[in-house]
Amino acid sequence: MSDEFSVIEKFFKKNFQRDDVVLGSGDDCAVVALPPGKQLLTTTDTLNQDIHFFKNTSPEDIGYKSIAVSLSDIAAMGGEPRWALLSLTIPMLDESWLALFAKGVFACLEEFNVQLVGGNLSRGPLSITSQLLGSVDQGKYLTRNNASPNDLIYVTGTLGDGGLALALLQNEQSNELFTDEQKIIQRLWRPIPRIKEGQILATIASAAIDISDSLALDLQHILAQSKVGATLFLDSLPLSNTLQKLPTEQAKLLALTSGDDYELCFTLSPEKVSLLQKIDCPLTCIGKIEVAQGLRVIESNGTQLHLDPNLIGYKHW
Amino acid sequence: MSDEFSVIEKFFKKNFQRDDVVLGSGDDCAVVALPPGKQLLTTTDTLNQDIHFFKNTSPEDIGYKSIAVSLSDIAAMGGEPRWALLSLTIPMLDESWLALFAKGVFACLEEFNVQLVGGNLSRGPLSITSQLLGSVDQGKYLTRNNASPNDLIYVTGTLGDGGLALALLQNEQSNELFTDEQKIIQRLWRPIPRIKEGQILATIASAAIDISDSLALDLQHILAQSKVGATLFLDSLPLSNTLQKLPTEQAKLLALTSGDDYELCFTLSPEKVSLLQKIDCPLTCIGKIEVAQGLRVIESNGTQLHLDPNLIGYKHW
Repeated sequence: MSDEFSVIEKFFKKNFQRDDVVLGSGDDCAVVALPPGKQLLTTTDTLNQDIHFFKNTSPEDIGYKSIAVSLSDIAAMGGEPRWALLSLTIPMLDESWLALFAKGVFACLEEFNVQLVGGNLSRGPLSITSQLLGSVDQGKYLTRNNASPNDLIYVTGTLGDGGLALALLQNEQSNELFTDEQKIIQRLWRPIPRIKEGQILATIASAAIDISDSLALDLQHILAQSKVGATLFLDSLPLSNTLQKLPTEQAKLLALTSGDDYELCFTLSPEKVSLLQKIDCPLTCIGKIEVAQGLRVIESNGTQLHLDPNLIGYKHW
Repeated sequence: MSDEFSVIEKFFKKNFQRDDVVLGSGDDCAVVALPPGKQLLTTTDTLNQDIHFFKNTSPEDIGYKSIAVSLSDIAAMGGEPRWALLSLTIPMLDESWLALFAKGVFACLEEFNVQLVGGNLSRGPLSITSQLLGSVDQGKYLTRNNASPNDLIYVTGTLGDGGLALALLQNEQSNELFTDEQKIIQRLWRPIPRIKEGQILATIASAAIDISDSLALDLQHILAQSKVGATLFLDSLPLSNTLQKLPTEQAKLLALTSGDDYELCFTLSPEKVSLLQKIDCPLTCIGKIEVAQGLRVIESNGTQLHLDPNLIGYKHW
């Protein structure tokens, strides 16, 4: 037997058992049962060393985040996560690394009641591809293409902490101000997918997306796909107490243009605002959908911020 | 907009539309509809440069194979393939490479009526993770754990061509004998997943697996999971006309111990043999399941071949 199988057996078979898993990992495919009346959601994400995390990032955090980023896509569709697959490429079989990585993976999976039903282990430069499968009641999913003029634009939680964490880790930001540095860095490596919030929003919002590249970039996907435009008010962007220690303009720009927050950005008709009280997390109205295409960001002095396309979010290339 | 999105738009949106795709790629998740009475199959595989293919392997072949290997897992379960996701990690945005890669991907997808419904594009060392989703009628799937003593062991097609192709590419085998070298190398890069055969076998076979690492290794998964043993007859292994140009013992050993053939190995009760005529590809009986655990391979002179665990198939590490 190749070592691949003993590694999977030793580190990746600790999962609890969901009732809807007919045959879990260990065969050519997993077999799962989707309840009647449900539609299937599916998404995949890859994290690569030196691009999405660093050589010294804790394996436990890498494991956690590799699941969380795909869960966040399920959240943005208003779905219920059910099953995961994980493709792990590693340069060598380092058992202590694998044990920590698996601990992080299962911490996130179990928090959201997801069963790991399969995967792949191969040799090469460190890279993790997660795939999440979930469900929605038939037709009850959120998309990016249904925002309408006059809809309000909201975000969950606070923005910019992921970007601040990255700046701290890359020494682009002095950490003297931040006695709570570890807490901020947690926001980068352990994002909390807004699963519950997304499920409630599925019945309220007109469009939604999760913020992975930046508010400015990700909102533009909603605008382009809905064929509308928007005005955002820079002063309205919600900032954590930590981010507020930065000079205001710098903090607001991080909130607008940095990635890795995994909050939800959504739009809704003004008459539905009262329904938002069902949601148990901070929500902030940050702007409005308009007929005129394009994204306009208004500064506190009333002038329109120039958005340099090269500086408004995570650039993959 | 980051270039990621224009690349996806330009190269990966050429797919035909299946009726069961509710929302294809372009949102946070794809939404698909599984017909009533079906169970969902899911599997994932990764191909990495320098491990699973080489720097000079044609991008079109890499694209084709990245889908075919996962389709082969659907075949081994007796399933009907429906949807695919593709996570592509590339070092740079090389448009001519991407165009050829996508051509190979879609050639395989369309051959098997599969729609690409999502994926991910990220920067890093070349690596492709495919994920295939398919279906079976409720409970009608093939596993590895149901072979019984006295069942016969069969394989589809011929074995060892993938291994010969690899030896030729690595100059471990002189190619003087092989005027049909390109045809052999096709078997390595363009394996044909046995989808139709697997669907028929789902009603006939007791257990099945696809041969990716080697017959000797992969059959042992059936044996271990079914808690049985087996005897194989080395002389009975089916060889292509090409492989028969090698000295017999060398050819038989390649068929037994080399990977990448993606044929199906399956077991069935002797009274079901007549049902195999429904299958329209060469099938060969190569041995028998027995109570005594372990795998025994019998040579033409009647002696038992010694199976060195380090030499019986593709070693991931």
